[in-house]
Amino acid sequence: MLNFQCDYLEGCHPKILEKLAETNNIQMPGYGNDPYCGSAREKIRRACGAPEADVHFLAGGTQTNLTVISAILRPHQGVLAAAEGHIACHETGAIEATGHKVLTLQPSDGKISASQIEEYCKNDLACSIREHMVQPGMVYLSFPTESGTLYNRKELKEISSVCRRYGLPLYLDGARMGYGLSSPSNDLSLADIAELCDVFYIGGTKCGALFGEAVVISNDSLKRDFRYFIKQKGAMLAKGWLLGLQFDVLFEDGLYSGICAKAVNYAQDIRRAFEHKGIPMFGNSVTNQQFPILNKEQMEAFHPDFEYEVWGKYDESHMIVRFVTSWATTEEEAGKLIEKIHSIP
Amino acid sequence: MLNFQCDYLEGCHPKILEKLAETNNIQMPGYGNDPYCGSAREKIRRACGAPEADVHFLAGGTQTNLTVISAILRPHQGVLAAAEGHIACHETGAIEATGHKVLTLQPSDGKISASQIEEYCKNDLACSIREHMVQPGMVYLSFPTESGTLYNRKELKEISSVCRRYGLPLYLDGARMGYGLSSPSNDLSLADIAELCDVFYIGGTKCGALFGEAVVISNDSLKRDFRYFIKQKGAMLAKGWLLGLQFDVLFEDGLYSGICAKAVNYAQDIRRAFEHKGIPMFGNSVTNQQFPILNKEQMEAFHPDFEYEVWGKYDESHMIVRFVTSWATTEEEAGKLIEKIHSIP
Amino acid sequence: MLNFQCDYLEGCHPKILEKLAETNNIQMPGYGNDPYCGSAREKIRRACGAPEADVHFLAGGTQTNLTVISAILRPHQGVLAAAEGHIACHETGAIEATGHKVLTLQPSDGKISASQIEEYCKNDLACSIREHMVQPGMVYLSFPTESGTLYNRKELKEISSVCRRYGLPLYLDGARMGYGLSSPSNDLSLADIAELCDVFYIGGTKCGALFGEAVVISNDSLKRDFRYFIKQKGAMLAKGWLLGLQFDVLFEDGLYSGICAKAVNYAQDIRRAFEHKGIPMFGNSVTNQQFPILNKEQMEAFHPDFEYEVWGKYDESHMIVRFVTSWATTEEEAGKLIEKIHSIP
Amino acid sequence: MLNFQCDYLEGCHPKILEKLAETNNIQMPGYGNDPYCGSAREKIRRACGAPEADVHFLAGGTQTNLTVISAILRPHQGVLAAAEGHIACHETGAIEATGHKVLTLQPSDGKISASQIEEYCKNDLACSIREHMVQPGMVYLSFPTESGTLYNRKELKEISSVCRRYGLPLYLDGARMGYGLSSPSNDLSLADIAELCDVFYIGGTKCGALFGEAVVISNDSLKRDFRYFIKQKGAMLAKGWLLGLQFDVLFEDGLYSGICAKAVNYAQDIRRAFEHKGIPMFGNSVTNQQFPILNKEQMEAFHPDFEYEVWGKYDESHMIVRFVTSWATTEEEAGKLIEKIHSIP
Repeated sequence: MLNFQCDYLEGCHPKILEKLAETNNIQMPGYGNDPYCGSAREKIRRACGAPEADVHFLAGGTQTNLTVISAILRPHQGVLAAAEGHIACHETGAIEATGHKVLTLQPSDGKISASQIEEYCKNDLACSIREHMVQPGMVYLSFPTESGTLYNRKELKEISSVCRRYGLPLYLDGARMGYGLSSPSNDLSLADIAELCDVFYIGGTKCGALFGEAVVISNDSLKRDFRYFIKQKGAMLAKGWLLGLQFDVLFEDGLYSGICAKAVNYAQDIRRAFEHKGIPMFGNSVTNQQFPILNKEQMEAFHPDFEYEVWGKYDESHMIVRFVTSWATTEEEAGKLIEKIHSIP
Repeated sequence: MLNFQCDYLEGCHPKILEKLAETNNIQMPGYGNDPYCGSAREKIRRACGAPEADVHFLAGGTQTNLTVISAILRPHQGVLAAAEGHIACHETGAIEATGHKVLTLQPSDGKISASQIEEYCKNDLACSIREHMVQPGMVYLSFPTESGTLYNRKELKEISSVCRRYGLPLYLDGARMGYGLSSPSNDLSLADIAELCDVFYIGGTKCGALFGEAVVISNDSLKRDFRYFIKQKGAMLAKGWLLGLQFDVLFEDGLYSGICAKAVNYAQDIRRAFEHKGIPMFGNSVTNQQFPILNKEQMEAFHPDFEYEVWGKYDESHMIVRFVTSWATTEEEAGKLIEKIHSIP
Repeated sequence: MLNFQCDYLEGCHPKILEKLAETNNIQMPGYGNDPYCGSAREKIRRACGAPEADVHFLAGGTQTNLTVISAILRPHQGVLAAAEGHIACHETGAIEATGHKVLTLQPSDGKISASQIEEYCKNDLACSIREHMVQPGMVYLSFPTESGTLYNRKELKEISSVCRRYGLPLYLDGARMGYGLSSPSNDLSLADIAELCDVFYIGGTKCGALFGEAVVISNDSLKRDFRYFIKQKGAMLAKGWLLGLQFDVLFEDGLYSGICAKAVNYAQDIRRAFEHKGIPMFGNSVTNQQFPILNKEQMEAFHPDFEYEVWGKYDESHMIVRFVTSWATTEEEAGKLIEKIHSIP
Repeated sequence: MLNFQCDYLEGCHPKILEKLAETNNIQMPGYGNDPYCGSAREKIRRACGAPEADVHFLAGGTQTNLTVISAILRPHQGVLAAAEGHIACHETGAIEATGHKVLTLQPSDGKISASQIEEYCKNDLACSIREHMVQPGMVYLSFPTESGTLYNRKELKEISSVCRRYGLPLYLDGARMGYGLSSPSNDLSLADIAELCDVFYIGGTKCGALFGEAVVISNDSLKRDFRYFIKQKGAMLAKGWLLGLQFDVLFEDGLYSGICAKAVNYAQDIRRAFEHKGIPMFGNSVTNQQFPILNKEQMEAFHPDFEYEVWGKYDESHMIVRFVTSWATTEEEAGKLIEKIHSIP
């Protein structure tokens, strides 16, 4: 059985495993104060063209989102996000548990726009009883989005510009960053993102690491005391070098986007296979997640050899399902799936 | 240079590393729903003589403490703990950040007593304006304590009995559980702990794992919806099998306490070396942490070959320092330190 | 100038003022432990046909909502409410600040339905990753709604029945309860509400009191330790008798709904005047708030003699505005407004 | 029976009652945007010699403390306070419920000192794992203290100076401010307090008002968005003019400290009566609370004619009890108590 349900089904890139074995017996200072974290920070700063950025390593995505967002917002503020954003839907109210409302905007193909943000802010400023409303305090984007789409440079520039005009820090959740950066449709570099966002994270868990996310803070005013927030939220790993080491490997010789590029290619092949078959796709994903709209018979055709995730109902007789490739997907595995697609009714 | 600052300086036991390598390419379901977590749960239940217990795996200690404590308490309740307890001192207010006060009791040799808890509860019940005070809602113990001491069976029974009389769930933080269980002075088994406590955790990070803690919930009424709390607090690892796998290895053939026993033995040798030298020890640690009281000259004698942690001021001319052994400490390393102790002024 | 912006423009019913003067120099125990609170509690219990209910007095509505809701929910739960509900829109994220998400349903004429709640719960139960979602933990209704409409007995019974089936406490916000109870369209009594809801509050601030709301808890399992929550949220008035005394007066001889009935009658007269004029009304308010849809010229016609509140945009050339009567509105004042309505273009 | 248990036993000063009656039927804008609030703000600014200060009115003390403190602190910060401070003991963990630890210092005669604060900050700065500790983020004082003592100008200057050196906003809880200002031992003016503190509140509830506290923010950087916090915490009274009106009366012609001065005089007479009797006093209260140390027989001697509050145990055979006078205490009442004191065994 081949599983295409998600991109966190395997361990880590073999080079990381090697490094873990190599360093296993070496005594290392705790809490991220080790040479591997140091080296990884340096490589990430360089990749981001942001020599002054602060870089922190945390274990997982929900943890990172709640730590960053609660560190930025004041008590009366909320975070603007797409209604289908991860923080709005799939984190058991982690943001609310830190005291803050997620203020939602209806996305289009997974994305929210600069003009939506601007309209929200304008309405807020025009309101005569503003202090009875949650104040918009920052903006959250995913890159890629939950739907596998990407903000292009123009869109991100516009959003960044609105955010700066209204004093809203811009935070980008890059849980699948590698698949975004390496998509043929992408025109954004890490340096662009570092310049246009105030803080973002580079996902490791889904992009070749065992676990771990690298938070990059480019806005000076958000740097202060960030390690306190990491510790308070339970996100400071005692053996922090485990995180640093992984990013140190991933950011050597372009490994990070290299291994993700492959996955995006396979995903595009899979998309084309569905389209060739005349099966409609939900949304215009240009990354490693693909969302065909299948009827019951088609859904069953994949059993028992392939697993996918049921994403939601499309209409009375169709469901949206999700197939995901990852850095670990092989050509052979992608090939088998494509073959199966060609054969479904 | 040999580092005795803490017990999280090395990676993990080689058997874990092996298993990680072995399983690295196998597709595994996420969020702890994998066979390794299943097997580890079963082994832990068996070791605890608690076939009905719920077992969950989280990444780190602060995370575990804040998740468990905030899951148990109602909004107006606080947690009773030793004033030097980890949650009271060294977690950046993680418990308060979930809305709860840590109610402190003065420990004696690191431990609080049943009678202190009872007195606190009696005073609370007798208070005419009880609703103006934080209600005691649970009790937190560390085993071993921050000072390396251990509750014995009699003490834990008494505490458990008071807790049950006053309706207070008893939670035991076992970050260094392995060093407690394997101490020659210990008379408590995991089964005793499971019976006497309502929830506790078996520490992995400091006891042979790369990272990870296993929460055991033996009280039925605390089991409900616990996975929600794990997810909400950002403590649910996507690749949950990484945690299960480690505990599965550690709970095979007594590895967990076996590798910790060695460390406790070395620590006792180190203690005896200090005592033989006429250097007073702070507290009666019977586990892997030892706290000699050194003057300046003695402190310097260890440099540059040995690192220890400065624990606090003892008097104008003496400091309490901490030497810690771990599962990774070798006989040779312990020997070198003991030799050095013999040679200090 | 006559102000119809809201129903908290005047002080209190003269009988309350009298009583305040009468008792001003009498020494009274604090925190609600006085004879006036006792007597008011008794009268309210009687009015609710709920001799076992707990009754508490708090100072204001947002305070009451946040105290009740955070007392009921567990950390991973949220409260289901109409998207236009007060807690969802106009309390500066007070609920989120206690750690809980407001889960919104699209209301129809201000109301949510039993079937919407049931569908939400069914979807939640069917979800394969439930613990990644906020768990619905209670339901919040307003009576009257923000739009001035009322749940009828059948609707409330159905909602209550769904709530009980899914284990969701039902909470009813009665900030304007008096105007609901005394509406000719209403078929619910306080006793019905006490029976069908688990907790609700009877609004004083907008219904004849200087300030104050009476929380009625009919569900035994929600009674425990409620005074702790009141105190913790800063909602326990030192001179609690000020609140008890007001409700004691309002619940003597039917004063509460008597003074509200008048206001509802005037509001219906005002509605009819608009309708007679051919001006469309927004929603079917049967209580003391009325929402005509006016064009710019019509809006200006009321100036400078009458004040109303701008409620929102209807279309490019029309706004929804709100006219509100209260217990303090006189026949003469209502008459003048109606005369003006007849005269507008 | 005469009650000396506390200073919130009666309603309000008759002039306030008069004004309430006078204005009862006048339509007034809500939420503190009325002329009475405006006028009261102006008078308070003048009394504080702080023309630029922001002044807000809230209903009660716990509410004010939790609103101010949670508005100032960042998530990883705590508030330094005397271990017997109101926020540390008698507010059901209201501060912790907003996410913040109360960091306690041992007071001497109810007061903490500049050097204690400095030492705390120095130790914090010197700590090698600062981010594992709660960061001190502000200082809380009570004036008068819980023990009825007063900071003098020299002490407050020193505290203020340490606070500014370490960047800690200084907040003074003036629940009984009137009794402090009007004590013969006091050398601080409202203007001194406004200059030396960053924010403080002038208590109304215990000093002649029905209810209400006036928050004065003199530090510009703490002014922003404060109304949001008031609303979010449920502390914004719909009929805000009720609060403004009361302070407007109290700050006319020195009424506020005038009516409190009388109470302090009586309290000093009561103190002298105890001392004359040879009964030791607990602490050196110079305000309206007095704490004699009584044996059982003496305690009973006051029954059934006088009520006091039992404060705590002094030794096996003695209790500390509290007698409190207020603005409402008459010469005759004080006289009767003094007479009784003379007669006890």
